[in-house]
Amino acid sequence: MTHWLYLPQLESTGDTAVLEEPEAVHAVRARRLRVGDSVSVFDGVGRTAVARISDVIKRPLEVHLAVGAHQHWAPPAVRIHLTSALPKGDRQVTMLDMATQLGITDFTPVNFERSVSRTRTNSQDRWRRALIESCKQSQRPWLPMMHAPVDLDQWISHPPDGGVVNLIAHKPGESCSDIIKESLLGAKHIRLLVGPEGGLSEDELTRLDHTQAIRVSLGEGVLRVEAAAVALTALAGRLSVAGRTGSQPVAGSV
Amino acid sequence: MTHWLYLPQLESTGDTAVLEEPEAVHAVRARRLRVGDSVSVFDGVGRTAVARISDVIKRPLEVHLAVGAHQHWAPPAVRIHLTSALPKGDRQVTMLDMATQLGITDFTPVNFERSVSRTRTNSQDRWRRALIESCKQSQRPWLPMMHAPVDLDQWISHPPDGGVVNLIAHKPGESCSDIIKESLLGAKHIRLLVGPEGGLSEDELTRLDHTQAIRVSLGEGVLRVEAAAVALTALAGRLSVAGRTGSQPVAGSV
Repeated sequence: MTHWLYLPQLESTGDTAVLEEPEAVHAVRARRLRVGDSVSVFDGVGRTAVARISDVIKRPLEVHLAVGAHQHWAPPAVRIHLTSALPKGDRQVTMLDMATQLGITDFTPVNFERSVSRTRTNSQDRWRRALIESCKQSQRPWLPMMHAPVDLDQWISHPPDGGVVNLIAHKPGESCSDIIKESLLGAKHIRLLVGPEGGLSEDELTRLDHTQAIRVSLGEGVLRVEAAAVALTALAGRLSVAGRTGSQPVAGSV
Repeated sequence: MTHWLYLPQLESTGDTAVLEEPEAVHAVRARRLRVGDSVSVFDGVGRTAVARISDVIKRPLEVHLAVGAHQHWAPPAVRIHLTSALPKGDRQVTMLDMATQLGITDFTPVNFERSVSRTRTNSQDRWRRALIESCKQSQRPWLPMMHAPVDLDQWISHPPDGGVVNLIAHKPGESCSDIIKESLLGAKHIRLLVGPEGGLSEDELTRLDHTQAIRVSLGEGVLRVEAAAVALTALAGRLSVAGRTGSQPVAGSV
């Protein structure tokens, strides 16, 4: 399995490139890659290439690559958009990491009445790094898009475009996979809503009643935000995939 | 939501009890519980009770409880047995935590050709603490059972008792939820097999061919052990639950 490295400027790259700093550090210090090693590079928007490390300069650290032909990958057929309360501390990164491995295409933090964590400005960088690392791990050519936090009312009033299906993690919800699967038939965009650990308030539940969201039970236990988010992502991903084909390159080399 | 505390000796407890040390520390230092606070206690084998903190002695720390009537809960109708390679470091606890929240009843580490982590004797204590914390978090009265590590051949030769269904996380696998759901109909015991991040070897796949295990695809990405384990647990839990009722107390107060 070749290592994946993030090279956002891949589109304008010719047959040589220099890695950005966090990737260079990761490649040399964590992965211990050396001159001559083969890697894959990706730009997070569907472009990948095979590359070879052509030079490593120590101070300041620079990793040079010889880059092969580019490949283009179609975006995922279904947008799986995780919209959730924020768990505390490190569990934010755990959630984003696993949800990215399992195929989310978008992430939006949602503020609820009982939210315990709010977005900090410095969180965004950590989350972005987590998304990049998870794409590398799972070899996904499309980086999930990170959106600004919204309040629940903004979530509810989100202009309905055709084919958006909303699934809400909620304990007294639908546990029948057939009903969930049917609702996902033909969906192009699935939004997964996960509330805070204190639960949704009565008022929030009432407001959500006016949307056509499907409440999905994830079992008998009381779940932390990240466990609910990962379980709902896995379920939506698997139940929406029936009959669809996998991601294929849309064009050959360029 | 009342806090849950682990009290393994609940069966023999009368109307007063003293918490074991890790629970006492957790209750007082982390949860900041005080005399007069209400809690729930559970013994991990289906017994719970409401209790009230009657006394807190500082040095050495002792937390005394006044314990109410006991309730008995039936064991889960389906055993969901996670049998997996070990992820590295902290990701072991992340996996056990989330899988417990999502309802595993058993955990067995499995050694594969390409396993990177092996069980250490001191791991068992950390895992046990993680399972207890997750049961408290998710308010599950049954603590998952932790079994000794096995090699894949032992896993394969596991005597088949009626109603065991084996699901293997494997990328070129079944992505049709109907086939998986049908296989789980009536299952009393589901074993989930998750291999190491280097994948199953050809030889291991051949040996597994002789079992009646169903290969389940969890999507296009390359998954870390803990992400695959959590996704497969969520899927098995939801797809096996159709038509079954939730857990209810089997008897009233004793």
